[in-house]
Order: sequence, then structure tokens, then C-alpha cells
Amino acid sequence: MPCFSLLQSSLLNVDNMNPNVKRVEYAVRGAIVQRAVQIEKELKEGVKKPFDEVIKANIGDAHAMGQKPITFLRQVLALCAYPELLEDDKFPADAKQRARRILEACGGHSIGAYSSSQGIDCIRQDVARYIEKRDGGIPSNPDNIYLATGASDAIVTMLKMLVCGEGRDRTGVMISIPQYPLYSAALADLAAVQISYYLDEDKCWSLDVAELKRAVDAARQHCNPRVLCIINPGNPTGQVQSRQCIEDVIRFAKDERLFLMADEVYQDNVYAEGCKFHSFKRVLFEMGPEYSTAVEMASFHSTSKCYMGECGFRGGYMEVINMDPEVKAQLTKLVSVRLCPPVPGQALLDLVVNPPQPDEPSYHQFTKERATVLATLAEKARLTEQIFNTVPGITCNPVQGAMYTFPRIALPQKAIDKEEGLSPDMLYCMRLLEEEGICLVPGSGFGQREGTFHFRMTILPPTEKLKIVLQKIREFHVRFTQEFS
Amino acid sequence: MPCFSLLQSSLLNVDNMNPNVKRVEYAVRGAIVQRAVQIEKELKEGVKKPFDEVIKANIGDAHAMGQKPITFLRQVLALCAYPELLEDDKFPADAKQRARRILEACGGHSIGAYSSSQGIDCIRQDVARYIEKRDGGIPSNPDNIYLATGASDAIVTMLKMLVCGEGRDRTGVMISIPQYPLYSAALADLAAVQISYYLDEDKCWSLDVAELKRAVDAARQHCNPRVLCIINPGNPTGQVQSRQCIEDVIRFAKDERLFLMADEVYQDNVYAEGCKFHSFKRVLFEMGPEYSTAVEMASFHSTSKCYMGECGFRGGYMEVINMDPEVKAQLTKLVSVRLCPPVPGQALLDLVVNPPQPDEPSYHQFTKERATVLATLAEKARLTEQIFNTVPGITCNPVQGAMYTFPRIALPQKAIDKEEGLSPDMLYCMRLLEEEGICLVPGSGFGQREGTFHFRMTILPPTEKLKIVLQKIREFHVRFTQEFS
Repeated sequence: MPCFSLLQSSLLNVDNMNPNVKRVEYAVRGAIVQRAVQIEKELKEGVKKPFDEVIKANIGDAHAMGQKPITFLRQVLALCAYPELLEDDKFPADAKQRARRILEACGGHSIGAYSSSQGIDCIRQDVARYIEKRDGGIPSNPDNIYLATGASDAIVTMLKMLVCGEGRDRTGVMISIPQYPLYSAALADLAAVQISYYLDEDKCWSLDVAELKRAVDAARQHCNPRVLCIINPGNPTGQVQSRQCIEDVIRFAKDERLFLMADEVYQDNVYAEGCKFHSFKRVLFEMGPEYSTAVEMASFHSTSKCYMGECGFRGGYMEVINMDPEVKAQLTKLVSVRLCPPVPGQALLDLVVNPPQPDEPSYHQFTKERATVLATLAEKARLTEQIFNTVPGITCNPVQGAMYTFPRIALPQKAIDKEEGLSPDMLYCMRLLEEEGICLVPGSGFGQREGTFHFRMTILPPTEKLKIVLQKIREFHVRFTQEFS
Repeated sequence: MPCFSLLQSSLLNVDNMNPNVKRVEYAVRGAIVQRAVQIEKELKEGVKKPFDEVIKANIGDAHAMGQKPITFLRQVLALCAYPELLEDDKFPADAKQRARRILEACGGHSIGAYSSSQGIDCIRQDVARYIEKRDGGIPSNPDNIYLATGASDAIVTMLKMLVCGEGRDRTGVMISIPQYPLYSAALADLAAVQISYYLDEDKCWSLDVAELKRAVDAARQHCNPRVLCIINPGNPTGQVQSRQCIEDVIRFAKDERLFLMADEVYQDNVYAEGCKFHSFKRVLFEMGPEYSTAVEMASFHSTSKCYMGECGFRGGYMEVINMDPEVKAQLTKLVSVRLCPPVPGQALLDLVVNPPQPDEPSYHQFTKERATVLATLAEKARLTEQIFNTVPGITCNPVQGAMYTFPRIALPQKAIDKEEGLSPDMLYCMRLLEEEGICLVPGSGFGQREGTFHFRMTILPPTEKLKIVLQKIREFHVRFTQEFS
């Protein structure tokens, strides 16, 4: 057979594809995870390894780590998918009532119909009520709620709205270092300017407004800073911001005329004593009208985290605050091109914001299941910090919230100098994967101060397995340090 | 309360937002649909109108128009959502077997876990087998299958990969006129150059390669044409391309070095006698290695159309053919940023490509339900053409496939001259909505030859209701013509 394709290079090749796409990086599913998948295949094919399974602590995927779905959520989803079950006595009345209400709001009473692009009306109303309750009665308007295909979708959409200008006028977006790499990936894709501000590792990864100021002032030399992104509770840091810090950030955003993006997808994941989740919106409104009518903001939430961990459904929402009505109309138009967020994910979100009430039959089981998940996570957060801090060369801040730890690792100079095209923390994580079957993400995928090294690990493996993982990392760390000393 | 926000304009306003987003238009959910939603609310509030309900024939949303979900699909989805039902005798064995297989492929055996970014392995294998069977045994590699959040997601992603260059080097993308406005919207968003080629209304909206040649030659003066998009069966035209036409298009794409994007989401929706769906891939491979090894292509499919009409689940896939391996790696990286397509939509897609077999208990009911939907659609396609062509001033091509008709309407000169900031066909559709409660999309939303006017209507309303809709449009058209004569 003649090899015609050899005569000329591909029409679409890496040299002539979209250069912004080439700049995109997403470490949470990067090289190390691809190798992990390969190793899993090798294990299945009977290849001998020093371990029996790969433990993927690279991604906040609770169900994959064995967390069971919350019964009530899944009952309602099954009823929505197959409404014949509404006649079935096995399902509790409140699950049926929720399903009926969702179905009535769907075109043709089917979750197979498109919803409106902003999301199903009654679900947006439920979201608004949930926010009002969470924020001590501060009003939330359902017209300001946009359901989305996970929080990622909403974040990228909001960033897209904000990007404009060329050269020195190009939009700059402030993101923390370390960050969740969705942000840097979206900025690369949109050809926006990334403005890095560093979190203070010595102060438990807290945010310092002086550092924000340093970063924005430096950035004004070469771009137009317009957006400040905050992740609270923090990913990958696990830090929970104080009310004071949030006030300072809001004041800073107002003074510097920055659009605030508050990624609050871990709002139910707060474990440390003395820590509490404060929503940016609540703090904003409690600071008075000088702020609450002036600061433009979007806040993001998801069905993928917290106690439910339903990542596969891709549910989420954003609330926009003080958005110019013309811009809102443009946003609504933009999301309409993709028709609507997945309706099963919308339904799931509805249950999260409108859970069983004390007088309803599912209340007891629901609250028990939720409490168990959150208590277990809190226990694992504590355990992780505790065990890591017994290892010489590993320094671990408290996991105050979210689902991750981002400990600092002291690497021997020989490992740093080794250079094989790998960053030293990638070398470390790759070796850990090959030797122990544990999949983490190197700190370089999230950003870290020059000369420091970290990894991100989820605290999601079941407690007994997590103990083994921590123990194995400890042994590996000692071995790695010896090898390169 | 002092009105601080009046002191300065919004930080984010229409003058400084992303200009590409401003250029995006999406008529299928545009002004007319927003007005339809408003009217529905007014009806609910008891406002008197000359009609009792708004009939939305603007969007291909089968379930919203009363089509019932296919039982087998929904049984499996309910089992996946709530696996406790696997113990239930009410569910057939084949539904349980499908659910078990999908769950086993999910992290933690839960559809709440993230899947791999390209989609669940075994589902991609099933898709590949489905394509092979459809295409008479031509091989399909699961590695070339990317599951997606509906076909829209895959189409936008593929376009994004292809866009590069500035000024005269900017990527040009050929799209048909009339087109499905996802394409023009995506091109505006990506700041790519739209190259319009016109379909031949006098020849049943068929595609003429001479017109492709005219368009590409003209475009080479000001951009770099790299992509040719085809929708077959056609949206909004309802045209089904002949095998000969597809061969000609493939030859043209090869000669002109164009990446082919084949939107084949209506592949099961072919009604007209003598018409048959030919996949671009099959024709490509049947043309021999000179073509099958040289032409780069992506083909798109969806769970939203055909007999299932499950729009709300946002399921779909693309198959890439002859894609440069380095580009494929970049594509895989790009989709990983959004983590994964919604898993319920992936599960649904699996059932579509792997339906009950003759020896399985659900086979009889499944095939009966599918056949009924398709037969009813064929009947409605015939009816629509027939009735429209009895109206003086409406000319309607046969609805050979898909779910739409795009009839031409002769408008009186006074209506054309009226100008109220509305295009004449928008005026027509707006009046039809206000007077009869029927929601269509003006032809200007899809593109049409200068001086011609059309609307797009779906054939999805239930047969008896469709007859009423057609009758009402007939009466309206006569009235409108008289009024402006």
C-alpha cells in the first residue's frame, strides 16, 4: 500500500495548531496520571510490581476512593431517570416529592429535555434560597444564578467574559500560587495574562494583602489587571480564610477595581477547630453599601466536593453580584450556545441545596450519612498532618479544609541537580509511583516558590488505606533522601 | 442609602468585555425565544392571549414536545444512579447487565466518580464497535473516540484546536449557509474567519462543489482556509447528502488541504424514499488509500437526536481520523482541563451504541419503541412538506432527514421595507408568536441568500398538534401577506 501520508506533513500538526492550546497545562491529569493508568493496565496484564494496586491520590474524586453516594440523592436521581418508580413503595415520600417537582419543571416532564440555558427556574430559586440561608438572610436573586457543567465550566465562562485588550492592555488575572491549575490552563487558552500572588506557607498558606499589592503593582507595568481569583477553602493548600482576611481582600478588590472570583466549592469542607467558612458574598454585604453596591463578583459552587462528591454528574452554579445588566445579557447569550448544563447534574444540585428537612422521612438517614462523610474527612485531615510532620524532611501545614494537603518536601541537592528533563518534584513523584504505586501531583503543577518543592495529595483514601499510604510515603521519603545524599 | 455605584461605570461593562463574546449570536435561543418564555409566564399569570399555550417549534427538543423516553435507556440509567435497584425483579436482565458493566468501569463503581477525560474506556470501545458495524467493517480505534458534553462540546473543541494565525493567516472555516448557528457562534468566539458556502435551495438544499470552490478561492484572498464543516443530514435544511456528493466533498477537501468536520448527529433521522445516510468515514475509506490515509477528519454524534432525543443528558462523541499523534496528545490534554464529560450522558451513549440484541429480553420493546418514534417522525416530515406547499407564498423542500424544515416565505415588499430594527423574517416570526403562540426561528439566524426569507420549524410536535400548527401558520401567512399588501 503506498504511503501517501508520508508525502506531506499533516494538515493539522503541532506547528500550526492553536498556540494557546499548546500553552495549556493541567497537572492534575498530566504525565504522572497517564503513567499511573499505564501501570494499572500492566498490573491487570500480570506484570509484577512491588505493589498490587495504584492508589490515586492525585484528584479530588471521592467516589473513586470508595466513598458511598448519599442514598437520598441517588434515590431522587433514579426516580427522575425512570419515573415509573414513582409508583414504587420502596422509595420514601420526600424523595418522590423532590423528583416530581423537578420533573414538573422539565420540558415534557423529562430530564431528557433541554432546560433553559441558565438552568431550570425552580432549581435556581432553590439555589438562591440556599444562599440566603447560608448568608444569614442576605438576599439572593435567582436571576443572578447560572447553573453550569461543574464549577470549572462556570469559572472558564466568567473568565472568558472578562478578557479583552492587546499588549499592555491585555486583561491580567490574579491567581494564587499555589493554585488549582484550571485557572492557569484557562488563562493560557484565553491568552490572558497570569498575575501570580504567593500564599504564605509559613503562615499556614494564608493570603497576605501586601503580597496582592506587590503583585498587582508589578503587573500594571505590562498588562491590565482586572480580575482577582480566590480559592477558599484552598486548593491545593487546604487553608481556610479568616473573616478578617476576606474583608481585606474585598477592600483591596474595591480599591484596585478588580472583579472578584470566589471559588467556594469546598464550602462544606472545613475541619480545623476555630475555622469557619465565610462566604465572600456575606462578608461583602456585611461591610455595608459602600462595598456591597460597588464590588463586582462571581461566586462558584459545585456538586463534586463537600459531602456528596458527585464529580461525574458535572453539576455546579455561579452567582453573579453587581453585574452590569448588559453584561448579564451577554453572559446569558454566551451560555445559550451550549444549550444547557446536564440536567441530571442540575437535579443533583437541587437536592444539595434543598436537602431533606427535619419533618421529612429521609432526614435522619441523610444527615447521618452526611455527618459520617464529613467526620471521616476531618479525621483524615488530622491524621495526614500528624503523620507527615513526623517525617524528617516533610513539613505539612494543618489541613483546615478542602480535600488536600500540600506538604513541603526537602529534597537532597543531588536530586535537584539530577535533571532528566524532569523537575525535581516530578522525579520524586514519578519514583514514588513506580516504587509504591501511589499517585500524587508534583507541586510544580500548582506553582511554588522557586527552590521549594511540594506535592499535592488528597485525603480521600479510606482511613485504613490512608494510613498505609502515609506510611509508604514516609518510607519512600527516607529512602529517596538516602539515595541522593 | 448612598448610590455609590452611580459614581463610576461598572468595572465590567459592554464596552470593555470580551469583544469576541459580543459578536456571538445564537438565534435558536435568541430574542424570539426569550419573548416566548415571557408570553408563557404571562399566560400563567392569567393574561388573555389569542391562544392557550406557546408551541415551541424553535429547537430540536423531542421530549419537550412530548416524545416519551425509550424505556430501556431509562431503566439502565436508574440502575446506574441507584444500584440497589439491581436487586429489583422489575428490571430486565439485559438492563441490569448493561448497568453492571458500566458501573464496573466507573471509579469506585459509581457514576459519581470522574471518568477519564476522553471518556470511559469500555464505552469508547462500544462506540468503536458501533461505528465499525455502521460502516461495513471499516476499523475504528477506541483511542480515536472522544466522548463529549453533547456534540456541541466536541465541535467547539475541535474548532479550537484548528484556529491559529493573524490577519491574512487567520484560520478560515467553511460553513454552509444556511447553517446551524453553533458554528458561527463558535467562530466568533474563537475569532476565526467564517467562510460561507451556499446550499442550493432549488436543488433541495444540496451541496455543490463548484460553490465550495468559489467560496474557498474568494476566501484565500483574506484568510487561510483550513476547515470544511458539513452537516449531514442537514440542519436546518433537512437535506440528506447523496453518496456522490460526499465523494465530491472529500475529493475537494483533499485537493484544497482542508480538515473535514462531519456533523452527523442526525444519522438515524432519514425519512425520504431513496435517501440513505452515508457516513463520511465510510465513503472516505471506500475511496481507497489515496484518500483514507490522507484526509484528516472528525465526525460527531450525539445522544440528543435520532430516536432517543435525550438532549438533557448532554452525551456525544467524536471520532478523529488521520489525526497527527502529537495533535491528539494536545487534544487529550485540552479536554482533561474540564475533567470529564457528564458520566450519565456517557452511560446513555453506551446504550445507544450497544442496544438490546435479538436474544435479549428488552429487544422487542426497545425496537418497537424506536421504530414508532422514527415512523412518526417520517410521517410528520411528509405532512409538513405537503401542507406547507399548499400555502401560496410558502415553498418547502422535502424534509428528507433530521428534524427541521426550512421553508422559503415570500414576504410582501411593505413588510420588507417596514424596518423596525427587525429583519423582515424576524418581524414575521415575532408576529406569528404574538398572534398564534407559535415559536419559530427566523431564517436570518441561520443565514440565507440576500433577499430571500425563511424560517426554521421543527417537525417534533405530536402529529395532531403539528397539523394545527401548520394550519395556523397557513392562516397567519395569508393574513400577514394581506396586511402588508
